Order: sequence, then C-alpha cells, then structure tokens
Amino acid sequence: MAKLTGDEIATHNSKSSCWVIVHRKAYDVTEFLPEHPGGPAIILKYAGKDATTAFEPIHPPDTLDKYLPKDKHLGDVDMSGVEKVEEEIDDEERARLERVERMPGLDECFNLLDFESVAKRVMKGQAWAYYSSAADDEITMRENRNAFQKIWFRPRVLVDVGTIDTSTTMLGSKVSIPFYVTATALGKLGHPEGEVLLTKGAKRHNVVQMIPTLASCSFDEIMDAAEGDQVQWLQLYVNKDREITRKIVQHAEKRGCKGLFITVDAPQLGRREKDMRSKFSDVGSNVQNKGGDNVDRSQGAARAISSFIDPSLSWKDIPWFLSITKMPIILKGVQRVEDVLRAIDVGVHGVVLSNHGGRQLDTARSGIEVLAEVMPVLRAQGLDKAIEIYIDGGVRRATDIIKALCLGATGVGIGRPFLYAMSAYGLAGVDRAMQLLKDEMEMNMRLIGAARVEDLQPSMVDARGLISHGHILPVPSDMRGFAVYDGLAGPMEKAPGVGKEKAKL
Amino acid sequence: MAKLTGDEIATHNSKSSCWVIVHRKAYDVTEFLPEHPGGPAIILKYAGKDATTAFEPIHPPDTLDKYLPKDKHLGDVDMSGVEKVEEEIDDEERARLERVERMPGLDECFNLLDFESVAKRVMKGQAWAYYSSAADDEITMRENRNAFQKIWFRPRVLVDVGTIDTSTTMLGSKVSIPFYVTATALGKLGHPEGEVLLTKGAKRHNVVQMIPTLASCSFDEIMDAAEGDQVQWLQLYVNKDREITRKIVQHAEKRGCKGLFITVDAPQLGRREKDMRSKFSDVGSNVQNKGGDNVDRSQGAARAISSFIDPSLSWKDIPWFLSITKMPIILKGVQRVEDVLRAIDVGVHGVVLSNHGGRQLDTARSGIEVLAEVMPVLRAQGLDKAIEIYIDGGVRRATDIIKALCLGATGVGIGRPFLYAMSAYGLAGVDRAMQLLKDEMEMNMRLIGAARVEDLQPSMVDARGLISHGHILPVPSDMRGFAVYDGLAGPMEKAPGVGKEKAKL
Amino acid sequence: MAKLTGDEIATHNSKSSCWVIVHRKAYDVTEFLPEHPGGPAIILKYAGKDATTAFEPIHPPDTLDKYLPKDKHLGDVDMSGVEKVEEEIDDEERARLERVERMPGLDECFNLLDFESVAKRVMKGQAWAYYSSAADDEITMRENRNAFQKIWFRPRVLVDVGTIDTSTTMLGSKVSIPFYVTATALGKLGHPEGEVLLTKGAKRHNVVQMIPTLASCSFDEIMDAAEGDQVQWLQLYVNKDREITRKIVQHAEKRGCKGLFITVDAPQLGRREKDMRSKFSDVGSNVQNKGGDNVDRSQGAARAISSFIDPSLSWKDIPWFLSITKMPIILKGVQRVEDVLRAIDVGVHGVVLSNHGGRQLDTARSGIEVLAEVMPVLRAQGLDKAIEIYIDGGVRRATDIIKALCLGATGVGIGRPFLYAMSAYGLAGVDRAMQLLKDEMEMNMRLIGAARVEDLQPSMVDARGLISHGHILPVPSDMRGFAVYDGLAGPMEKAPGVGKEKAKL
Amino acid sequence: MAKLTGDEIATHNSKSSCWVIVHRKAYDVTEFLPEHPGGPAIILKYAGKDATTAFEPIHPPDTLDKYLPKDKHLGDVDMSGVEKVEEEIDDEERARLERVERMPGLDECFNLLDFESVAKRVMKGQAWAYYSSAADDEITMRENRNAFQKIWFRPRVLVDVGTIDTSTTMLGSKVSIPFYVTATALGKLGHPEGEVLLTKGAKRHNVVQMIPTLASCSFDEIMDAAEGDQVQWLQLYVNKDREITRKIVQHAEKRGCKGLFITVDAPQLGRREKDMRSKFSDVGSNVQNKGGDNVDRSQGAARAISSFIDPSLSWKDIPWFLSITKMPIILKGVQRVEDVLRAIDVGVHGVVLSNHGGRQLDTARSGIEVLAEVMPVLRAQGLDKAIEIYIDGGVRRATDIIKALCLGATGVGIGRPFLYAMSAYGLAGVDRAMQLLKDEMEMNMRLIGAARVEDLQPSMVDARGLISHGHILPVPSDMRGFAVYDGLAGPMEKAPGVGKEKAKL
Repeated sequence: MAKLTGDEIATHNSKSSCWVIVHRKAYDVTEFLPEHPGGPAIILKYAGKDATTAFEPIHPPDTLDKYLPKDKHLGDVDMSGVEKVEEEIDDEERARLERVERMPGLDECFNLLDFESVAKRVMKGQAWAYYSSAADDEITMRENRNAFQKIWFRPRVLVDVGTIDTSTTMLGSKVSIPFYVTATALGKLGHPEGEVLLTKGAKRHNVVQMIPTLASCSFDEIMDAAEGDQVQWLQLYVNKDREITRKIVQHAEKRGCKGLFITVDAPQLGRREKDMRSKFSDVGSNVQNKGGDNVDRSQGAARAISSFIDPSLSWKDIPWFLSITKMPIILKGVQRVEDVLRAIDVGVHGVVLSNHGGRQLDTARSGIEVLAEVMPVLRAQGLDKAIEIYIDGGVRRATDIIKALCLGATGVGIGRPFLYAMSAYGLAGVDRAMQLLKDEMEMNMRLIGAARVEDLQPSMVDARGLISHGHILPVPSDMRGFAVYDGLAGPMEKAPGVGKEKAKL
Repeated sequence: MAKLTGDEIATHNSKSSCWVIVHRKAYDVTEFLPEHPGGPAIILKYAGKDATTAFEPIHPPDTLDKYLPKDKHLGDVDMSGVEKVEEEIDDEERARLERVERMPGLDECFNLLDFESVAKRVMKGQAWAYYSSAADDEITMRENRNAFQKIWFRPRVLVDVGTIDTSTTMLGSKVSIPFYVTATALGKLGHPEGEVLLTKGAKRHNVVQMIPTLASCSFDEIMDAAEGDQVQWLQLYVNKDREITRKIVQHAEKRGCKGLFITVDAPQLGRREKDMRSKFSDVGSNVQNKGGDNVDRSQGAARAISSFIDPSLSWKDIPWFLSITKMPIILKGVQRVEDVLRAIDVGVHGVVLSNHGGRQLDTARSGIEVLAEVMPVLRAQGLDKAIEIYIDGGVRRATDIIKALCLGATGVGIGRPFLYAMSAYGLAGVDRAMQLLKDEMEMNMRLIGAARVEDLQPSMVDARGLISHGHILPVPSDMRGFAVYDGLAGPMEKAPGVGKEKAKL
Repeated sequence: MAKLTGDEIATHNSKSSCWVIVHRKAYDVTEFLPEHPGGPAIILKYAGKDATTAFEPIHPPDTLDKYLPKDKHLGDVDMSGVEKVEEEIDDEERARLERVERMPGLDECFNLLDFESVAKRVMKGQAWAYYSSAADDEITMRENRNAFQKIWFRPRVLVDVGTIDTSTTMLGSKVSIPFYVTATALGKLGHPEGEVLLTKGAKRHNVVQMIPTLASCSFDEIMDAAEGDQVQWLQLYVNKDREITRKIVQHAEKRGCKGLFITVDAPQLGRREKDMRSKFSDVGSNVQNKGGDNVDRSQGAARAISSFIDPSLSWKDIPWFLSITKMPIILKGVQRVEDVLRAIDVGVHGVVLSNHGGRQLDTARSGIEVLAEVMPVLRAQGLDKAIEIYIDGGVRRATDIIKALCLGATGVGIGRPFLYAMSAYGLAGVDRAMQLLKDEMEMNMRLIGAARVEDLQPSMVDARGLISHGHILPVPSDMRGFAVYDGLAGPMEKAPGVGKEKAKL
Repeated sequence: MAKLTGDEIATHNSKSSCWVIVHRKAYDVTEFLPEHPGGPAIILKYAGKDATTAFEPIHPPDTLDKYLPKDKHLGDVDMSGVEKVEEEIDDEERARLERVERMPGLDECFNLLDFESVAKRVMKGQAWAYYSSAADDEITMRENRNAFQKIWFRPRVLVDVGTIDTSTTMLGSKVSIPFYVTATALGKLGHPEGEVLLTKGAKRHNVVQMIPTLASCSFDEIMDAAEGDQVQWLQLYVNKDREITRKIVQHAEKRGCKGLFITVDAPQLGRREKDMRSKFSDVGSNVQNKGGDNVDRSQGAARAISSFIDPSLSWKDIPWFLSITKMPIILKGVQRVEDVLRAIDVGVHGVVLSNHGGRQLDTARSGIEVLAEVMPVLRAQGLDKAIEIYIDGGVRRATDIIKALCLGATGVGIGRPFLYAMSAYGLAGVDRAMQLLKDEMEMNMRLIGAARVEDLQPSMVDARGLISHGHILPVPSDMRGFAVYDGLAGPMEKAPGVGKEKAKL
C-alpha cells in the first residue's frame, strides 16, 4: 500500500475530520475525540500533524492497538513531506533549559530529597506536575512524609555493631536492603528511556522492582532489561475483561515475575488538580467561559490512563486470581485492619498498606500509621507471621525504613524519589539514590543498636505520636495578636559608618 | 400628584433636613438618621440625592415600607432633573476592574476554593467583606474548615463500586446529593440578580435551597424562580411581633415551602470587624477622634439588617411554632448535645448543628465537632433516628460531606462557596460549583468503598483528632532559638558564568 | 539660701563629681552612681545638666527623698542659666513623630488589640519596650494570650437573653462588668498624665482600679483623682523595712482603699531583655567589649525600680498583714493549687492567679490555666466559695472574661491594653477600650445564652484543650521536605496583554 | 640532616606523588590519599605546599605521628623557600570580615542565644557548619531545644528566697552551679587558642570541664591550663586497640581527671549534611557528575576525625574499664530506661542521657525527655540515688537547668553555646556566657521558690507536654484554604498627604 503523504493528512485538521500521525503511522481519531480521557483539545492541537512526541510518554506502547478500532488505522506515512511540529519554546521552557545548564553535580545530592529539589527545577512542567501531584488538597501526600516524624527512636547502646547486615527476604527472594522500587506510571515523562533505568538500578543494588501496569515501556521491555536472577514483581490494575487480565498475569508468571501486586485502592483513578492545572496551561484556556452543562472534563495525565480499571472488583474475585497463578498474591492499597484480617482469610500472601502515594483519597491515613494499627491486632491474634506486610508512601530516609521494620513491616516501597533521581540524572541518579539509602541504612542500624534486620523491634521506637496523636491540627489562633506582638531581636551589629544605627541580627 | 423635582430634593441635603431617593421615590429620613442601624454617615452621603445603588443590595425590598412611617414617604420623583451620583472610581476600584478583565476562565476552577480565590479578587471590597467576614478574630470560621481535616478516612477496599448512588432523602424530599444551599443574606451584594440564581442552580442539580429571611430578593421572587417540584425551605429570624412571624411562616407554607429552619444562634447579630472596617473606609474617618461617650456605632453591613430579631425567643416559644404550621421545624444553630436532646423533647423535626458560619460567637465549636459529640449520645439513648441532624460550616470538598455522613449527619449545608461562585461567574459558576461537588462525591464514595449513602458508617473515619484533640494550640516557642537556627539547604545550582557562586535550591 | 546656678552645676559633669538637676533642685549623685539600679551610664549622660525629663517617667515622685541621703540634696536651682538639654531627634524618633501625625482615628479601633497595634507605632521606643517586654523568651507572655484560645464555647440556645446584666460584685463592691484595671508600673512613660487617666476611665465605666506601688503618679494623686464612691485597691510590693510597709498599708486604708493586693510572684523583678536592649540602645554601647568580670549590669527600666522588694517575704508574714488592716487581703501571683489551699488556710480573702503578665518567670503557666487546675480541687473540697479567685494575663476580648467566669473566676484583671489605649489616645482611648469590652460582653453573653453573670457555668466551655493538652509543642519537622514540596495554586489570572503568561492567584 | 627545600617539595604536587608541609615538616601522603577520611581532594589542594593552616584546626596535634608511617615523615623543611599559600579571600569571606568589623559589643549579649546569633555571622563558614550541623534533617537537634519548652513551671510563692545557693556536688566535686562544659571536638575551628579557653572560663566560674578525645589542643595542654584544684573530666571514644585506650585512661587518671565519660552513642560518627555541603563548597565540585559506583565519600569535618572509634564496644567491655581505673565511670549517650537500669546493674557511676547534640541518630529523643521517662522508673524501684544522672542537649537558659533538676538530674552539660561564645569573643565571651547563666539561675530559683538546689522538686514542673504529648506533629492542612483566607487587619494609618489611601498596621 502506498504511504500516506503529509499533505493529505494535513487536510484532516479539524473536529470534523481529525487525523494524527504517531510513530510514522496515521490514525483517524475523529470519532474518538469526545471519548479521549485526556479531552479532545490536546488531540486537536495535533490534528493533521505528527503527534508522536506528545503521545509517547503518556501512553503505553500498545494503546492505539488496544483502543482504536482497526479501521481507523490508516497506514504508514511518508514522513518526508510531514511538517515538523516545532515545539514552541516559551519563557518558562527557556528558563527551565537554563536551569538544566546549571544543575548541581550528582555528588552534591546527599539524600533523596536533594534529588527531588533538583528534579523540580529541571523537569518539564507537565512531567513534574504528573509525578508530584496528588489528590485534592494533597494532604495525604504530605502526611505520608510527616507520619514518620511522629515516630521517635529508643536506641540501644553498647551493642556490638561492628558488622551490619541489612539484607532480608521478601516473598522468598533475598534482597540486600528492605526496600523495593514500587510501581509508578509513565516513566518516560521523566526520562526518555523510562522504566528500564529503574530495572538497571535495582539490579546494581540487588533490590526488587515492581513493574507498573501503566509503564511507558512495555512489560516485556522491562523484563528484558533485567539481568541474571534479578527479581521483579508485577503491579496489576484489573481490567473489566478478565481474559485480558488472565493473559497479563499468566504472561508475567511465564516471564519469571515473582509476585503479583493487585492494586485495590484505585477503582477510579484520583483527581489531581496540580496535574489538571498543568495540562490546562498546556492546552490553553477556552475562549469563552462555559457553564456547568458544558464542562471540559479533561483532567490531566492521570485521567488519560484510567479508562480500563474495573471499579466492581471485589473480595469475591480473589479466589479466581489464586486459581490462575502460582505467584504470591499481594493486595496493594489496603487501608485498615479489618481488611488485613480479611486478606489473611481469603488466603493472599501479603498486603501493601498504602494510600497510593496520596494520589487517590485525600485525608486517607499513611501506610505507616495503618501499620501501627494493624500489627498489634495481628500479634494479639497470633497472625503477625500469617502474611507479609509492606508499606509505601513518604519514605525518604533509611530511618523511615527502620521505623517501619521496627513496627513490623517486612519491607517498604519507594516510588517518586527514584523517578526524581532518574529524571534529573538518569541511571547514575538512581544508582546514587540507592547507594545513599544503603549508607544511611548501615549507619542508622549501627546507631540504633541493631546489627541485623531481625534485631529491629517495636521497643526501639516510641510511636505514640502517631498512634495516639496522629491527627492533630491546631485550632486557628488570634492572628492579630500575633501580628501586634513585637518579636525579640538579638544583639545589633554596628553601623557600617560611625553612626548609631544598627541592624538587628 | 405632581412628581418631586431633583432640584427640590437637592436642597434637603443635611442633617437638619435629609431627603433621599430610592427607586424613583423620595423619602424624608431626617428623623430616622440617628436610628439607622448602619449609622447616619452613610445616609448623609446621599442626602438630597439618589441612593438607590447603595441602598439596594443591603436592604430587603420591603425595608422602607416596613420601617419608615408612611408620612415620610414623599412620593414619586421626576428623575430627569436628578443629578446622577457618579460613583467615584478610586484606585482600589480601578485595580479591581482590571482584575475582572483578567479573571480566570470558569473551566479553570477545579474546586470550591478556586471560586473563593477568584471572588476575593473580583468582588467589590464591601461585598467581599460582608460575605467573608466573621465574628471577632474569625477563629471559629477558620476552625470550621480545619475541623474536617482532623477526621481521617479508613476506606474499605474490594467493594463493588461500579455504580455509585449519591442520592438521599431530606425532610421527606429526595435529593441528588446530601447537601443543600443554606441561607445567606444579601445576595445582591455579590450579583445583581441575587438569590434567584441560587434557586436556578439548585434546580439544575436537584438540591434544596434554603431561603434566607434577609435575602436581597423578596421571598416571593425566590419562590417564583423555582421550577416544577423544586424543593425550598425557609430560614426564619423570629420577629418580636409574632403576628409578623406567623404571617411569614404561613405564607411560606402556602407557597409550598417544605421546611422551616428557625435560627436560634442569633439573638443578636454578631460583630464582624472586617465588615466594620470595610464600611468605615467607605464612609471615611470622622474628622476628629472622639472619646467613648461618642462612639459611632455604625458597624458594617451586618448591623444594617439586624434590628428586628427577637432576643427573648426561647424554648417555650417552640410549641406555638408547631401549632401554626405543618412544615417540619428545624432548629438552626444548636451547639451542644444537651440542646439536641431538648429539641427532641419539644418535638421538632431536626436540628442544624451550626455556628452561623463563624459569624456569631467566636471560639464556638464547629458543627462537625458538635456532631461528633452528639451522635454517640443519641445512639446510646436510641435517639439517633429521632430527628434529622444537619450540619453546616466549612464544607468545601465532597470528602467533608462524606465525613459528616459517616459520623451520622443526614446532610450538610453549604453557603459562602455558592455565593462566591455566583459573585464571580453568575449562574454558570453556581452550576459548575455544584457539578464539581457531585463529581468529587461520586469519586470519593468509590474510593472509600461506599456505593450508596447508607453505606457511609462511623467505622470509615478516625475522628479522634477532632473528638479527643480538637482544641490544641501549641505553646509559643522560643522565637530567638528558631531565628538563630541555620536551616538546611539543598544542592546548589552552578552560577550562570564560570565563578563559584551558587544559588541555594 | 541662694539658688545654685547652671554654670556651677555644669562643672560637676564627670564620674568624679556628678551633679544633676531634677525638678529645679540639684543633687550630688557621685557616690550613688555605682549603686544606681539602672547603671551609671544613663546618669552620666545628664551629669551637670537638667535630668528631669529622663528622670520623671521612670521614677516614683518620692524616689530622691527616699533613696538619696539628705546631705546630697544641694538645694534649689536658678533655672535661667541652665542650658536646655536638647533631646536629640534621631531618625527613629523622626519616623515615630511622622507616624503620630498619621495615626488612625480612635473610631477605627474596634477591639483591644487595635490599641496595641497603634501604640506600637506611636509610642516612644523605650516606653513601648518597657510596657511590652516580658521575661526571657517571652513565652509565658504569649501563652497568656494563647491559653484563652484553647477554651471553646458550648453555648446554650433558646434562652431568653432580651436583657443582659453584666454587673457583679468584687470584694463587696458592685461593679458594672467583671474586670478591673490591674496595677502596672510607670504610667507616665506612656502618657504625661500617668495613672490618673486610668482612674478617670475606671470611674466612667464603674470598674475598680488597682493602684500600683510603682506608679509614676504618687499614691495620693491617684486617690485624689477618684470621684464619689469610686472603688480603688492597692497593689503592694513589700519592703524589707516593715514599718514602711505598715505606713503604706494603713495610709491606703485610711484614704479609702477597699482591697490590699500583696504581690507574691516578684521576690526579684524579672529580667526583660527587650527592655534591656532598648535601654542599651539609648545609653549607647561601651567603647570596648569587656569580659565577665566587668559586666555592665544596667538592665532596663525594670531594674531601675526593683531595689526595695523583700525577697524573704513568706507565709509566716501573712498574719501580720491581717493584723494591721481591715482591708480584704488578696495574694497576687499565686500559681498552683497547693498555694491556693494554703492561702485559704492562712485566712486571706482572695488570690490572683497570675504570672505577672509574663514578666517574671518564663514558661510559668497562664492564670487561666491555673484556674482550670484550681477550681475542680476547690469544688471537690467544698472550698470554691471560701475565697475570691481572680486571674489576669492575656485578656483581650470579652469572650476571655466569659471563659474565666465560666471556669469559676470572680473577675479578671486587665493591664497592658489600657496602658496602650492611654498611651495612644489618652483618656478617650481608655474610655473607648472599656466601652468596647462592655459591648462585646453584652453581645457575647447573649450569644452564649447567659443573661446574668451567675448564669456562666463550667458546662458552657470545653477546656480540655487547656487542661489536658495545654503544653503541646510540635516536634520539628523535616524542613527540606517542606521546602521541596510544590504547593497548590489556584486558577491563574490572564496576562494583562494577549500572551499566555498568567499570575497565580 | 639537611632541610628540605620548598622547590623540591613543590615538585611533588600530584596524585602520583603528593608531599605536604605541616608545621615545618614534610610528609609523603601519596599512599594515604585514598584513605584520608576527609577525602583526597582537600589534601591535593595543598600538594607540594604548606598545609598547616588547613590541617591544624581539624586534626588533633598527634595525628600524623599516630596515623602516618614513620617512613613517610620526610623531615624538616627550610621554610624560607616555601611559597606562602595565599588564602583566597572570596566574596563570602570578604562579607564575613566586614561583619566581624561590625560585630556587636559583648555587653549586648544578654543570653546564650545571643552568642549563637553573633557567631553565626562572624565565624568562618566551615567552622560554623561543623559546630552547628547535626544528623540528617537535624530534627533531633531542634527538638533538643524544643523539649524544654514543653515543661512548664508550677512555682511556689511566699518562700523565703532572700539567699539563693546554686551550688551542688557532681561526682564528689563541689561546683558553683549545676552545669558542666561538655566535650565538643575541634575547638580551634572557632578560636585559635582552642579548648584551653574553656578551661580558663570554667575555672573562673568553678564549673567542671569535660575534655574531649577529639580536642584541637592536646589532652595535656588542656590539663596544664587548669589551675589549683580545678576539676576536669575526660570524654572517651574507645579505640579498637584497647591498649591505646588503657593508656589514655590511666594517663588521665594520673593527671588528676575526676571522671571518665565513655561515649556510647557513637559507634560510628554521624553524617551531617550541612557540614558535608560546607566542605563540598570548599573543595569545589567535581568536574564531571559521577554515578553511584564512583561516589566521592568525603563528608565534612565530622568524617575526618572518626576512623578510630570501635563499633563493637559493648556491655561486656564495661568490667574491664572498671578494672583499669578508679575514676568514676559514666556512660555518655544512654537513651532509654532499659539501658539506665543495665548501667546500674554493671556498676557504673552515672549516665548522661544524651543524643550527642543531635549529631548522631536523627529523631532520637532529647535527653530531657529520656530523663522524664527514666526517673519515675528509678524512683519506683528505689534506684533514683543509685547513680548520678546527667543530661545534655539544648540547654540555653537557666530555666532549662532548673527543669532538668526538678525532674531529677544531678546536672546538665552545655556544649555549643560556649563554643559560640568563644568563637565570637574568646575567653571574655565564655566568661560572660557563664555569668549570664549564673545570674539567670539565681533569679529563676528565686522566682520558682527554691533557695537551694535540693529544693527543686518534680511537683514544681508540669511535664505532661513532654511525657504524654512529646511527639506531636500536626497533620498537613489545606494550604489553599489558608491562602484564600483574607486575614484580619488593624486600624489603618492615614496617608502621608491628604488622600484616602491608608496603610494597614
């Protein structure tokens, strides 16, 4: 078949007939426009043009095959006649590129937060917005970080900590340190190579990578990037069509995945306003304000990827999963002790206490807090060894990992920090981030007086700040009273000259 | 009778003889000056002139008929000779008009707070001050918002939430979502059409509107704006003259009102200093400072509308109300469990746990907090179905509504957010605000694992932060210690040139 | 005796011979220099000159008679030849005088904090520093204000509050509202007329004035300023020489004082660094830095007035006081329940739970907090009517007064706010400040559902925030985590021109 | 032997052959480069040059003898031909020198925090970074200060406090006030004379100095600086080679040390990022960003001094220490009650409850908090007199000392404040800092109603804020809600001219 020409395609540049090019193939998306989870505006921006650059990082590779009927696949394009879409470099982008020029050296990153501060400055706005955003007022996301700071150490002294062993076992696999790389979507937004960089980093440090359903790389690409006996797990959004799900699961098992993490906290993908605003500023404001009947529902990258999750997934589906795979099954996103008990009851192998990085239900509790609720109940019932308990959300320091393990977790998942390290510095960033965590881990186990992971015990932490006083918010105070208060100053420097004027220190 | 001329009226422009024009009629307000709840200064500004523009938004339509003796009604005015009062456009107003030019598109409002941030920028200063102000230090108003953030979710997972039904029943009426538009005064301050816009918005979304006694539109105008079987309730300030009150109530019932909400938290209208300062800046400072004997008691829009409320209203009046109407009677503004029990005892049909949007008694507790106090007592006594319990104050997110319902409320009232949406964007704003709430409601019920309103249960929230730790205020800390602390910085960007200077990230 | 001439005095202008003029009389203070509680530097500034202006506001009128031996009183001065000491107007003073020009009208002060915000701008730096300063880090002073905001109302509704009576009885005297003007030192620092203005204000509003030992006006001047049956009390610092104390007490009783408030929280006057720094900047830095052996101990206005307080005053002295006067005796500055019980035991008539406005021991608890500790114990022992309990510290709103009365106080003392009102606006300020409190009191009693003072009950407040959670201070949080967080923004205004730039709202 | 010439040494200026001069002697450090705890880069900066200035303040005097093999000691240098290394004065240093010019007079320092605020401005950046830095997010360091503010006083009144005696006994030695100068490393970073200044200051005020293992001055220099019967203790890091440790201990005992404080909270020296960043900026960024395999592990001054600490030190080593010395043995850095009980059990004479100034394990609890945990347990077991309990960390006010003593401490250690006083003002600063503490101590004991140290009792403090609510951290709040809130303003100043514009107060 003759290739389509750029000129021909360029005529289909409107709502009434909208063609786009993706990876040298043309597609007729006219009828699809109103159904596009990301809204029609962003597609129309590329009507009659090459949309590859915009399409790629936020769509899994098989998207068009899966979602667009075959008769809308128009065939190959002769790219020689296709006009390049010049990405307009606006002031914001120009400033960003300057910041990239001046970004700090990798050796100046001393902890995981440092990567985040660099990434915030050098990432593209929309990518940053997608990774960093969370649900509603982002209270839960921030609380995820705060929660660890409500737990304080009760270190043991005069323990022989000459040799520290940070290794442990997760779902039967030996790992060098009790964290894993948890699943996060759309890795190519941050780095053109995407999730495979995380695979390589995980290999270097002998930690597990959990492969996301919504990766930018395909599942097989990520599996292929693994080396030797490297351990990988699969994170799963359950499709309404269970046959699709069966195929995904069984394919993963065949490829060697060692664990199946079924996401249970996302019957619908959350609404992330920072992401929505970012997308809005990209597509531009509508010319006229419109009333409620005519709301543009386009809502950021999050919405662009959510249409195939089954909201009716329920406990009664779990036996079927147990029947189709021998991989251990872990429920990811459990948020209260009642559901942990039920998980034990239905026979799964683990749970991840998680609120999805604060991206789903705002003011849901942090994983570490739920852990502090769960473990005493399990211990009281003799069930604390019945399944493996993981948490994720807000882990930034090895002390956070230690706190989780003291409270009873088998391990913790870490997501965004590695994305930020990858987005800013590529594989070297991921590598250094993991190394920093390992260094912190060894030092802090030494300082708490625990030579091995199994030495981490509940008595080594005081978690009352989390358990009894976890949700404190001060009442508003009399702002005027504060405003009229004349704060204390320190001694005053002499004036540069001879006079008596001085500057407050 | 010959019309009065502008020239004639213009001669009555002083304290000794003060005429004003309102809606093409002249009035002699000389004797009324000292009694004006808003103070004489604001009237004298319009002495001998047309005061319609200033009068209209802050007085109910029948004010002059009610409060000014008939012999002070001077009759129709020939407006042709009346000099226009040019509203002076000062720098502040000019800046505001520029902000109106540049206001964000409606589709950029993603939540109720967004409307407030727009309204704050585009509303007239005095209107904003009236809507946004609250009592004393506004501590209670701010706490109303805070209180919801002390309640955290315990979501259920793996519940079938394929279909979500947010509808419920309030006082026998089916509504699409468990909130109603609560009564707020002086709608025309925000938008020239006033409260009827709320009526139309409520109709579109099938929610109830509570009609305020102190509306800018007349009661009948608001009833007339309703369509079909649209449900409306009446909010009532009880007049000292009970015959007036009887007429109001029985007229409302006849017009089809489905509920009578008697305000019980406002024996005197609160003092709102932000509103007072706003008015002050309008009328201008007195030339000479005066001592306590001679205080100008003019105190903003709130005071201009408060003179007819009966402060001696008491429990013994309730049977009479029950005798004059068949509408369900709800006490609005109950603030402790003892009074809820008494309300059940006297036989009313519901209570609204409310502090009047923080506009009355400062450091009164939030409605949601009182709810958390009330429900366990009612349940212990088997009275939790005895009446319907509503709350209002601080509701901005569907998660807030869900929290109230989990704790036991039948529904929640929302006031200011719709005023802000209306003031900024008119009916389209109200419409979108309601739609956003509905979208949030569906999503968040899904995420908490509740398919129907009746699935919302106390075990789904952890409210200890509100119940046990509701009124925490940190002790002051050593400010100097904080000032001398040298906070941590992140990695430093390289200098633009070659040098060694760097900027902290 | 011939008058001394300015020329003669001017020769005694050094450390070796230092004469000063005060109120047209000369004094030889050479030997007194090292003993001056305020340090020698400030005196030497006026050596050989007229020191009246500097001397007057910070010394009680009889200071020189009391403390300087008669042979150092050199006699009258012929002022014609005395050179005027021109007060140098520095930049700071010039700016202050400009602020005085522009100070807000009195009718713009809507609450007590408003007076403070004006006073801060228009008072002389040293006067402001003396009034506003407190001990060490001023934590207690700030907590005094905060403490009230930890108490929340539980208002009763549907109570007949048509008529409100705010009057009550204190130590047998009827007053119009349950506050009194508590004793504060050095009134002339704020206003040239000094404490008599407070006398006049108190009379207008029928409240009691407590006369300070360390007033700028003499005791008799303040008594003379009273009118009719105006009630006054005496605050007493106990002198080491008990005969002096006996004379003061018996003179006060004879002049008609109705209560004797013995200060028990100041065996030594506190160290107030803000005051010290202020003085320092006045006198100027020493030329050379000196080591610890040679510290200039001059420490602000507070130290200038403290030398005659007996630090050995103890419980065993109380019977003597009871023996020398029939005035009721109240211990001012009690700070724990054990000492209240002991006060009852020794037979005094009342206590003031107070920390001296935060000016003595930093991190001492607020009076209102001690009240919340004391009353349940007294009630349990049937002693709650045994004595009258007052509190002071941090009262700024009528709601604060109401909270104290609900918890069991007979009344509250208010100090600084009236000083600020007086300093900024003179008598008119004091008058308006009291009127504002009265207006607030009537309104808020109405809103809490209490028609009379005796209707104020413990059940009307929720004081758990004070009693159980009174001393909360959050742990430090991860500042870098907050710094890297990308806070949420609202909708963006359009750019002024056509472009796409927008400003965050 | 002929001296080496500068020219000859200058040729050994690279990684392949690196000589440096220290104190007029040359050393071949080529092979030592990769082992240098501070990293090779800082040494290479001085390759072929005189490194004395950089070497001295951060290395104990005997470092080279101890750590560099004898054959690398190249012998004396003829300094005449050695080129001076001009310390480059960059903009930052220039600004600092200007600040030194203008530094406040010593008599303007009124409390310990004042010294810190001056030191922060006048100290060299790296010295400030080393002294002021702490572990990870410096949460524990800040909490050390905060913790005291969670304890509030319950003062006794009417106690005879005419005479105050602040003296007490520590480990058998009489001291004038219950604090000691605790051990801190690298005193010459702050002042060229180093720790001997602290010795002299301690003598003047009759307090004990604890001599640090990692002093800049040698142990004997510090002992020699003592006068008369001045008491000194030894702080000990235990070396892997116990014979070295035995010699140190026995030498100290022979020289007259009165106590041996074995550090037990530092099996590995903490990671202090502020210090690391400071060092980084000194050495400069590497030219190329490197991945995790090649991380430069140079980590600031802290790492440069840590290589000889034995991480395997454990409880089983304590009997040996008891066998080699008659000095009382105190474990420094105990952090939980279990270990205090064990310390009693093994027969040591005391413990210091400490977290090493927040420099080791972040989110370890403050010493004062551990004290509040420990004492009730000891009292319940009748063990509160079994050993002496000290605390350190965050003490800045005499009130802090008083709180610790009320809770049961024998005394408190103070470290950084004296370093800051010394760094800013030398001996005079140390002297004044101690005098200020003494003045505060006397005054505050008077104000709390305790004439002697033994009068300080648990009932004089309310420590529930620390014990029950010690680790509170508010949940994040809705930032947008706060942002849209329109805060209250005060009365407005009139415009300078005639207009109506006003400025908010």
